[in-house]
Amino acid sequence: MTQFSTRNISMMMDLYEMTMANGYFAHHETQPRVIFDIFYRKNPDEGGFAIFAGLEQMIEYVENMHFTEEDIAYFESLNLFSGEFLAYLKDFHFSGDIYAFPEGTVMYPNEPCVTVVAPLIDAQLVETALLALVNHQSLIATKTSRIVRAADGRAVSDFGARRAHNMDAAVYGARAAYIAGAVGTATVLAGQKFNIPVSGTMAHSWVMFYQDEYTAFKKYAEVYPDATVLLVDTYDVIHSGIPAAIRVAKEVLEPMGKRLKGIRIDSGDLAYLSKKVRKMLDEAGLEDCKIVVSNSLDEYTITSILRQGGQIDAFGVGERLITAKSDPVFGAVYKIAAVEYEGRYVPRIKVSEAVEKITNPGFKRVYRIYGEEGYAVADLIAGFDEVVDMSKPYRYVDPEKPWKNRFFENCTVKELQQLVVKDGKRVQPKRDLEEIRAYVKQQLDKEIWQEEQRFENPHKHYLDMSPDYYEMKMSLLHDLRG
Amino acid sequence: MTQFSTRNISMMMDLYEMTMANGYFAHHETQPRVIFDIFYRKNPDEGGFAIFAGLEQMIEYVENMHFTEEDIAYFESLNLFSGEFLAYLKDFHFSGDIYAFPEGTVMYPNEPCVTVVAPLIDAQLVETALLALVNHQSLIATKTSRIVRAADGRAVSDFGARRAHNMDAAVYGARAAYIAGAVGTATVLAGQKFNIPVSGTMAHSWVMFYQDEYTAFKKYAEVYPDATVLLVDTYDVIHSGIPAAIRVAKEVLEPMGKRLKGIRIDSGDLAYLSKKVRKMLDEAGLEDCKIVVSNSLDEYTITSILRQGGQIDAFGVGERLITAKSDPVFGAVYKIAAVEYEGRYVPRIKVSEAVEKITNPGFKRVYRIYGEEGYAVADLIAGFDEVVDMSKPYRYVDPEKPWKNRFFENCTVKELQQLVVKDGKRVQPKRDLEEIRAYVKQQLDKEIWQEEQRFENPHKHYLDMSPDYYEMKMSLLHDLRG
Repeated sequence: MTQFSTRNISMMMDLYEMTMANGYFAHHETQPRVIFDIFYRKNPDEGGFAIFAGLEQMIEYVENMHFTEEDIAYFESLNLFSGEFLAYLKDFHFSGDIYAFPEGTVMYPNEPCVTVVAPLIDAQLVETALLALVNHQSLIATKTSRIVRAADGRAVSDFGARRAHNMDAAVYGARAAYIAGAVGTATVLAGQKFNIPVSGTMAHSWVMFYQDEYTAFKKYAEVYPDATVLLVDTYDVIHSGIPAAIRVAKEVLEPMGKRLKGIRIDSGDLAYLSKKVRKMLDEAGLEDCKIVVSNSLDEYTITSILRQGGQIDAFGVGERLITAKSDPVFGAVYKIAAVEYEGRYVPRIKVSEAVEKITNPGFKRVYRIYGEEGYAVADLIAGFDEVVDMSKPYRYVDPEKPWKNRFFENCTVKELQQLVVKDGKRVQPKRDLEEIRAYVKQQLDKEIWQEEQRFENPHKHYLDMSPDYYEMKMSLLHDLRG
Repeated sequence: MTQFSTRNISMMMDLYEMTMANGYFAHHETQPRVIFDIFYRKNPDEGGFAIFAGLEQMIEYVENMHFTEEDIAYFESLNLFSGEFLAYLKDFHFSGDIYAFPEGTVMYPNEPCVTVVAPLIDAQLVETALLALVNHQSLIATKTSRIVRAADGRAVSDFGARRAHNMDAAVYGARAAYIAGAVGTATVLAGQKFNIPVSGTMAHSWVMFYQDEYTAFKKYAEVYPDATVLLVDTYDVIHSGIPAAIRVAKEVLEPMGKRLKGIRIDSGDLAYLSKKVRKMLDEAGLEDCKIVVSNSLDEYTITSILRQGGQIDAFGVGERLITAKSDPVFGAVYKIAAVEYEGRYVPRIKVSEAVEKITNPGFKRVYRIYGEEGYAVADLIAGFDEVVDMSKPYRYVDPEKPWKNRFFENCTVKELQQLVVKDGKRVQPKRDLEEIRAYVKQQLDKEIWQEEQRFENPHKHYLDMSPDYYEMKMSLLHDLRG
């Protein structure tokens, strides 16, 4: 299971991280500690939330980060860096702390899912790799969750490897999809690496290799009598594929005491065909034969097929899941929030013409606030050292309506970030994928309002602030204006 | 440079390849040879063509394909495969032949860019990996070529790693972008692995780390006096960033005899700001200071900015390049074209309700036909053993208008596929990336009509057929109808 870590992932960075690090090295004998937050600004597909994924790989990356002699020689060849700095890199290891949401947490825009507290150079060098890891898996987990919700209890499997953006995208995409509720993947390497259930039967090439469809199906059933799922759309689903499949069920499987497990349709009008096929199978006494469909599916086509009464037991979802086709960029960013000065963290804020791009400054904590029924009513940002006590009414500020006097009453609270890396080393046990998957499901079943889960115009989750935190942010903005 | 090959890329497959292979193994003592074609059906972004990329990685993959004991143990744990088949896998190596277009070839829908001629099991097992490799790099090369064309001679650099679909997507995406005309990348690992020029200066965090913008710029210029490019949009481009940059040029660089190399704008109205900034720089005597812009660019925004008179020297293009955001799925497929029977290849055809999904059957060759001015006027498919002689008028069939009597006259012809892998081993030297990049440029400059290169409603390249090949295809369709 070491393929990921034996690759040269340490060099996965933007060059500017090195030019900045070399500059910091030149100007500062000891590197002050700084705080960077990772957060995103907009939910994919105009949805109500995203699912935080990729944390295990982020931890693996920072724990293994180092530069080989070959790496140093490459940097030297660029003629950009001082000899002292390159010597320093030889023994470089990431020595900072990382706070993060548990993997699988439902997250919202503008709250830090990950916070890096580290010496300046350490914090700067991990920027691009951390972002690529969180962006990719959160993108696919969020997209898959939408597809799984659209399937409304029916199985969704990842069939996307061939259209993934190269091998990592297939493998870590399958991982993210499984976290978010896919029942499995077709990608063998993902199955092997992460113990995800794998499935797969035949391609059109199997059917086309043999002289006719019946022979092809028969040959398959003879080898896999307990797992016969037949691809019925190579020539003509209704006039050829299904009749041949029924004949195999009767002539090959039944004499062996076996049942035809399923058929798959990979083209055509899936709503129409599935209804027609269901009727044909039922009339042949194959009521237990499952109907699997695939071909350019996503949450929108699945919703439409089911609304038309499509008779479908399972969806194989490929390219639109593994590339998140309708919105393939997850835009998490890495922004400096504070700089250590004389033993304390001085907040930094990035202003912008666009109000929504102003960052949330300082060392802070993120809380999820739950109402009496257990549903999350808001998230809350407060200073790192503030006490957030919900045992009595708690006054908070809605930054979009700061003039209002608002209170959380009869609420419970959970802090979302946990310390996962301390002085460069993992301090939380590696979490099992099944546990992460169950955590996602539990949140969507019991904690996240249906109004946030719908696709059209979902409810916007509140991101509130403690009064002190809000005051601090406003005073920074006032100072900058001056 | 072995990171790619030391990873377990052999397990990058869909499970159905294994279930089919195990089935073929059970039914056939010797595996007949088969022919599979890789082709795609639709140009991305409604463009006129695509750029074939990823071939080097495809060759590396088939040459290194093998299964470790750990892999075999994993397959055994699935309880799907026979002991004999698993024993066979222990010594499995890909033993087939591969014909392919030279990497960087401009390609069109429905012509095979890659053809695999191999024993049935070998041909089946490589399906998903080959597709993922060709789909990803062709996607990014095709997209980048569009962006480079929009930039109209100005430099385009890949800045996308953080939004790539994981690490491979960043690294091999940078490779594909460079092939297609990007001048370089910010991704260090891609620079190191493929000797691509790298660039990068500073992030907003550098500016925010210091107490003010002038100090941040000064600190940078002191370390990089020969390569000072300043990011000027952290607070306010016009009122703060550019005045501070000009002050550094005058007070820090000029006394050292150095010039300010450039400034970068990463937000706001890039057309408006670049014009205003150009004027301010020129008035300060910094006519040689380059203006670099970034922030959600693609061929459409670049075209728009330039049409508005934007004063820009270089574009840093991130998420929309590295994810091919506007059309992130490259849909190449792997379809069986022929099966060996009694020493000859019997063609196979896949029919479909959709006429454009009917495959081109049989073992064949693809030719590019050039008119007298050197521009490619059409591509031509003919049988593998046919002679295509352009020294006299050559009759061909346009499959969309087969009733017409058409001839190529005074044309030259080039065969596009070359044998690159023979009996599982590379038989062409590894091609240098610079050579591939020059080949792309030469085609776009000299061989591909501007009418095919435009973004709106480009000319559709003809894919013609030899009369014999067309007859063969039609007779297969007639046979199937019967």
